[in-house]
This record gives sequence, C-alpha cells and structure tokens, in this order.
Amino acid sequence: MTVTLSATLAANEDIERRRRAGERVLHLAFGEAGLPVHPALRDRLAAASECNGYGPVAGASGLRAAAAGYWTRRGLVTDPELVVSGPGSKSLLYALLLAIGGDIVLPMPSWVSYAAQADLVGSRPLLVPAPSGEGGVPDPDLVTEEVVRARAQGRTVSSILVTLPDNPTGRLASPATVARLVRVARELDLTIISDEIYRDLVHDPDLPYTSPADLAPERTIITTGLSKSLALGGWRIGVARLPENGHLLRTRLLAVASEIWSAPAAPVQEAATYAFGDPPELTERIARSRRLHGLVARAVYERFVEAGADVPEPQGGFYLYPDLGHLRLGGSAEITKLLLEEHGIGVLPGHAFGDDPSAARVRVAVSLLYGDSADERLTALNSADPLRLPWIADNLDFLSTGLRELSQSRHGTAPRPRRALVPAPCRG
Amino acid sequence: MTVTLSATLAANEDIERRRRAGERVLHLAFGEAGLPVHPALRDRLAAASECNGYGPVAGASGLRAAAAGYWTRRGLVTDPELVVSGPGSKSLLYALLLAIGGDIVLPMPSWVSYAAQADLVGSRPLLVPAPSGEGGVPDPDLVTEEVVRARAQGRTVSSILVTLPDNPTGRLASPATVARLVRVARELDLTIISDEIYRDLVHDPDLPYTSPADLAPERTIITTGLSKSLALGGWRIGVARLPENGHLLRTRLLAVASEIWSAPAAPVQEAATYAFGDPPELTERIARSRRLHGLVARAVYERFVEAGADVPEPQGGFYLYPDLGHLRLGGSAEITKLLLEEHGIGVLPGHAFGDDPSAARVRVAVSLLYGDSADERLTALNSADPLRLPWIADNLDFLSTGLRELSQSRHGTAPRPRRALVPAPCRG
Repeated sequence: MTVTLSATLAANEDIERRRRAGERVLHLAFGEAGLPVHPALRDRLAAASECNGYGPVAGASGLRAAAAGYWTRRGLVTDPELVVSGPGSKSLLYALLLAIGGDIVLPMPSWVSYAAQADLVGSRPLLVPAPSGEGGVPDPDLVTEEVVRARAQGRTVSSILVTLPDNPTGRLASPATVARLVRVARELDLTIISDEIYRDLVHDPDLPYTSPADLAPERTIITTGLSKSLALGGWRIGVARLPENGHLLRTRLLAVASEIWSAPAAPVQEAATYAFGDPPELTERIARSRRLHGLVARAVYERFVEAGADVPEPQGGFYLYPDLGHLRLGGSAEITKLLLEEHGIGVLPGHAFGDDPSAARVRVAVSLLYGDSADERLTALNSADPLRLPWIADNLDFLSTGLRELSQSRHGTAPRPRRALVPAPCRG
Repeated sequence: MTVTLSATLAANEDIERRRRAGERVLHLAFGEAGLPVHPALRDRLAAASECNGYGPVAGASGLRAAAAGYWTRRGLVTDPELVVSGPGSKSLLYALLLAIGGDIVLPMPSWVSYAAQADLVGSRPLLVPAPSGEGGVPDPDLVTEEVVRARAQGRTVSSILVTLPDNPTGRLASPATVARLVRVARELDLTIISDEIYRDLVHDPDLPYTSPADLAPERTIITTGLSKSLALGGWRIGVARLPENGHLLRTRLLAVASEIWSAPAAPVQEAATYAFGDPPELTERIARSRRLHGLVARAVYERFVEAGADVPEPQGGFYLYPDLGHLRLGGSAEITKLLLEEHGIGVLPGHAFGDDPSAARVRVAVSLLYGDSADERLTALNSADPLRLPWIADNLDFLSTGLRELSQSRHGTAPRPRRALVPAPCRG
C-alpha cells in the first residue's frame, strides 16, 4: 500500500492558496456541483435533526425503500434488501473493493479515486483504454487479453468498473459498447461495478442509456449518490444496488461498512429518503441543473474547439477532457502548470486519471463557473440564458483569453492582472 | 483480510429481531448513548443546512480550531493544523491504522472494532491483558515481552492503543499505569493511540485523568467524538489530535481520508464546531448525562453484585463487565445465549472483545435502560432520582429477576412472559 497525497488534493490546495492570496484563478479543477441546496432538502434535514441513533449499517429501511423505488422507476426492479447506503458513493466503492477482493479492470482514463482506492486495499488495477470516441468504459475488445494475461501471471481479477456517464471525459458509453462489455464480463466471470452518479445529468434526455444492470443483473453493482444531481457533495450520502444474488456480498459489505463508518449521518439519510422518491420539485431542480451544466459545458467546449484543442463533445455531468497536444507545450503536467501559473486556469492533469502523462490532456470541470455566491448560482440555475449572465460571460471570456494566450505563450505574452476573490461561506 | 459479520452486529440483529417479534428484551448490548439531541445542536444543524460543499478533507477550519480549544482547555495545548476530523472517531481509527501501518498492541479485552479494523487493513493485533483491576490499557509489564517476541519473528509493531475510560470494562486506567505505559512506548518507539471518546463521561470528576498526550506529546494521537458525551452517534463526527511532530502523519491520514470519506457531513461539522467550544448549555447537558450514566451503571453494578458476579466498579461511560463464572454455566457465548433466550437480557459476549471465550464475562451497556421514547429519556436526564422512574425501576427489576432466574436455571424455571414493545422513531 502506498499512501500519498492525491494529485487532485494537491492541485486543489494549490488553487485555493492562490485564490486566498488574491489571485484570480478560474477553478476548473473540482468536481463539486456548484449549486445551492434545494429548500425542500434543507427542511427535511432540519426536521430530522432529532435523529441521533446509529441505525442499521445498511441505512434506514425508508432510505433503502426509496432508493429501490428510484431504480425501479428507471427500469431496474430493485429489492430494498439489496440496497446499502454509505457516506458518499466513494465510501461504498472503497468498501466494495475490500469486500470483493482481487484486482479490478478500470477504464483509462478514469476518476482519480478508483486507482487510489485499489492501491489502499492492496489491489492492482488493470488500466484498459476506452474505445475511440467513448469514455468511462474499458474497450471490451482489449479487456479479455489483459485479464487473461494477468490471470496467467497468477493474479486474481474479480471485477471491472464503468462510469456512466463519465468523469473525466463527460462521455456516455453507447448501449452497444455496454452490451459488448457485459458479454466479456460474463465470459471472464467478472463482477461489474457501474458508477452511475452522473446518470440524472445526461444533458440530452433522448440519448439512450443502458446500465450493465439492465443486461447482467446477476453480476452488476450500481453505485450512485446525491452529490452531483442535487449538489449535496458536502452532505455525504450514496447508495449501492447489489446484484440479484448478492446476499453474501451484502453481508461482507456490511461487515466492512460497520467497521469503517457505521452508517451515513442519520438526518442526511432522512433528507435522502425524500430525494430518492423523485418528488416533482426535485425532479424539476435536477432538470434545471442538467440544462445549466449542459449549456455551460457546451460553451466551454466551443472555447476549447476555438483554441484548436481536440475535445470530445460533453454528453453528461459537468466535465470535458480536451487534448492540447497541438500546442506542443509538453505533457499533461506541463500544460496544467502553464494554465494555472501563467493564465489563471486551474484544471487537473490527465495523468491523475491514469492517462498517458506525455499526452496533453486535462480535465476541465465547469461547475464552479456558475458564480461565487449562492445568489449568483441560483440566478444561473433559473436563468433562461445563463451564458449571458455577466459573471458567467466574464468567466468564459477569461477562459478564452487564457487559452488564446496559451497558444501564443511561446511569444512571451505577459500574465494578466487578477481580480481578488472573496471566499464563499461553508468552505472551511 | 477476513470479512465476517461482527459479533456485535449479529447480536444486535438478533435482539432487534426478537423485539420486533414482540418479545421483551432488555437491550444491554449496544453502545448508543440513549439520550436525545440538545435543542441547541438541532438549531445549529438546521442553520447549517445550506452548507453543501465538500470542504477540506481535514474538516472546516472553524471545527479544527474549536477542537483545538477543547483540548487546550483540558491542559493539552493544540495546534488546529494537527486536528483532523472524520465521520466518527471509528473512521479516524481505521484511517490511522492504514496511515501508520504495521501491527498494533491492543488491550485485552478491548472494543470490538479495533481488532476488526486491524484485520481489514492486514495488521495483526497483539492482545495484551490489562493490569489486574484496570481496563483499557495493556499491562505495561507484559507489553515489552510481547513486542520484542513479535519483532524477533520479523513483524513490524508500530503502535499501541489505550481507551480512557474503557469500553468494555467501564474502568479508567490510573495515572501511574498510563505513565508506565508511556515509558514502555518510548523504549519500544511505539505510537500511542489514545481513544478518549468517553473522557467527558468519567462519573466522578475528581478521579485523576491522565492522557498519554500529557506525558508523551511527541508520540500520542488522541481520538474523540460527540457520539457518547452528546449522544450524537447517528450524526457521525469525530476528531483526531496528532502528535506535535505529526505533519507527515497528517499528510498520510488525509490521503487515506480523501479516498474513503472526503469529509464529515458539512452541516454536522458546523454543529460540532459549536459543541467543541464547550458552551455552558452543553457542558451542563454533559454533566447531567454523566450523572445519569453513573447512577444507572452503579445500580446495574449492584444487581450483578447481588447475583454473585465478580464485577469491577464502573468509573466512566455506560458499561460494566461482569464475570458470571461462579454459575458454572459455560463461557461467554453460552452465558450470552442463556441471558438472551431464557431471560430476555441482551448483552455481548466477552470473546467479541478479544477475551478468553472460556471466561463467562459479558459486556453490559446500560444506556438503553433510560426509556423507550425521547420523552422518557429526557425525563430520566432531568430527574433528581432517575432510579425511581417507573420504567427504569421496572427495567432494573427485570434485570434482577433475570439474573436470579439465571442463577436458578439448573432448577428449570419457566421463562417469563414478555411485554411487547413499540419501535422508537429514527431507528431504521
């Protein structure tokens, strides 16, 4: 086991330090949803403030029933007994790795924490590139070869992970690719972990969505949470849906959970019970959030296209994954450093996501562009044309200027003066 | 790594099943504080319901400053930079084991989760009995021999754990014993983890309290939380105080924390910030709680003494650790089963705490005797003479009868009829 400060944490601390020092930095490095809590959720939390018992490790029965309903309404009939909650889907993913054991196949690139968690539990990830033009799914044609080779070396490979839609690429794997992956997972007897935390934030509701659980209910675990769709990252609540034959896995998962976190915070569980019921006011809030993320992600996409980057069109969540290799300014670490230090644009390097360090790919999160105050963010959420709000337009212009300067950086453009920023409340 | 359902979890599920089926079971198996949330804390949680950002992994700066003040007021000057919060001190203990690495010396008996966590991270605990009449601390005279032997076998032994005051024994190690242990830890270069979650619940405020951090600030980590003193178990908040030279450990701990839980729930952090400030209304609440735990623990102690058990006098928290070996009815598993199935008394077997299974020792938690409703519990908290409240008196009588029947069980006494119970709210 190696224990080192993650690249994300280091990058974010660097950005925060610069902002505290009064520099203007466009914070495109953090996967926070950047929107306020819906008042109905605040009310539910307050009403549940009397709840102080530890409660069941799997989560309160009401929460598990609500999460089962959430999936059932999405075509996946779910037994509440096979739902387990945790303080964030991240915690559940960690506990699942421990409970399942063995090595895991990950898409390359993929969310920073998958490989870091595998490392913590002594598992060695097999990184398999996504098919061309897709993200969040290891290329099924390459998986078999990698797994067979690892097994021939005596390694135990037990599971494979997909992110639908994906962080960092913002892409949603097609139903055909998911079907191919499921066939391969069956042939190799791999458990599929499907991280669907961005599912409700696919920008185009007509884009077809297939979960591996639709095709392989006997071997698929889904994880999700409310951090992204309802901007409740700081509340720490996630749920896992275990396979239809997952009772033994459930026992193992609960044994791990009971020794690490006991249960999510009880008042948060009560609010989440309400949220997983898909009440109209929250469905409407998610629809607005989805629209805002989609509009701003597309605007940022256009800025990168204008700057000549090779960038896949974002389809879900609030991420883009541009390749700035045409500038020939170095790999992902060099580009990330240049963007931050010379142009006030904070992003994460692709190598933090397991990508080839020599490629100039970076992950761009657009969700902190919506405003610096809760008022600005709420205005953005409710705006018919958020891109014309002065602070969002200004942020996008700052990005365009920075990208233009970056392209010209070999000509020695001077860094721009930076506006000082006031820290937001509840931020430490 | 072994993953099995913990004995506690299994025992508690068994008790809950019986209660749901309408059996009367005196629930003495669960370490929940059994008291309501103070209204001031409910208000703080509600007021912080807008806080939805992930925030720093170590916890908000206000929370860390408040926790530093908490320790400073107890004679341990504390740098907020060396405070790390987590969703319960349990999570912090787990992450500390991962961050420190190596094997750990544990007192025998000790809280169920220490050994279970060690097992999850691939560490092998060295169980060392507590000195006669004490609890929560491995006998310093035996530690050196055990550690030297383990090291001679090539094992890396890095740390030693104490619980002050203790779960399961309810005893507080004397300052002299703590001083001896600190000397041994220095000689062996062991990090000391001092679990002080029951510190504010020592029954007699005049009993001298020494933390290893008072004597060895260079090597002691303290963990605590609000689950016991303020009955906030379900809110999941704990804090760790790292050694004065602990910056590297802090980096490793944060790297682990960021991959497992991110941070405690943000609204809970805000309420905890208030609580760690020791405001008078909460100090008064803790004083009342301490008094109630002490009175009921002593009453239960007397019932066990009457039944002929060998039981150390409880000094802190809400636990007792009687030995019923005089009955010659078997080891801790047999006694636990008899108490539950024949006499409606749910306790935990001593072997779950690492104790010798052939000894008839059980852990008794008294905190669920205070009432079945929030009203009853609040009445108990505010009562001048809680032992005379009808429901507490009735619970104590039920216990006495059960213990008397147990002593006579070889004469074939019929089990008593059991009153049906209504489940409490917020309990899953």
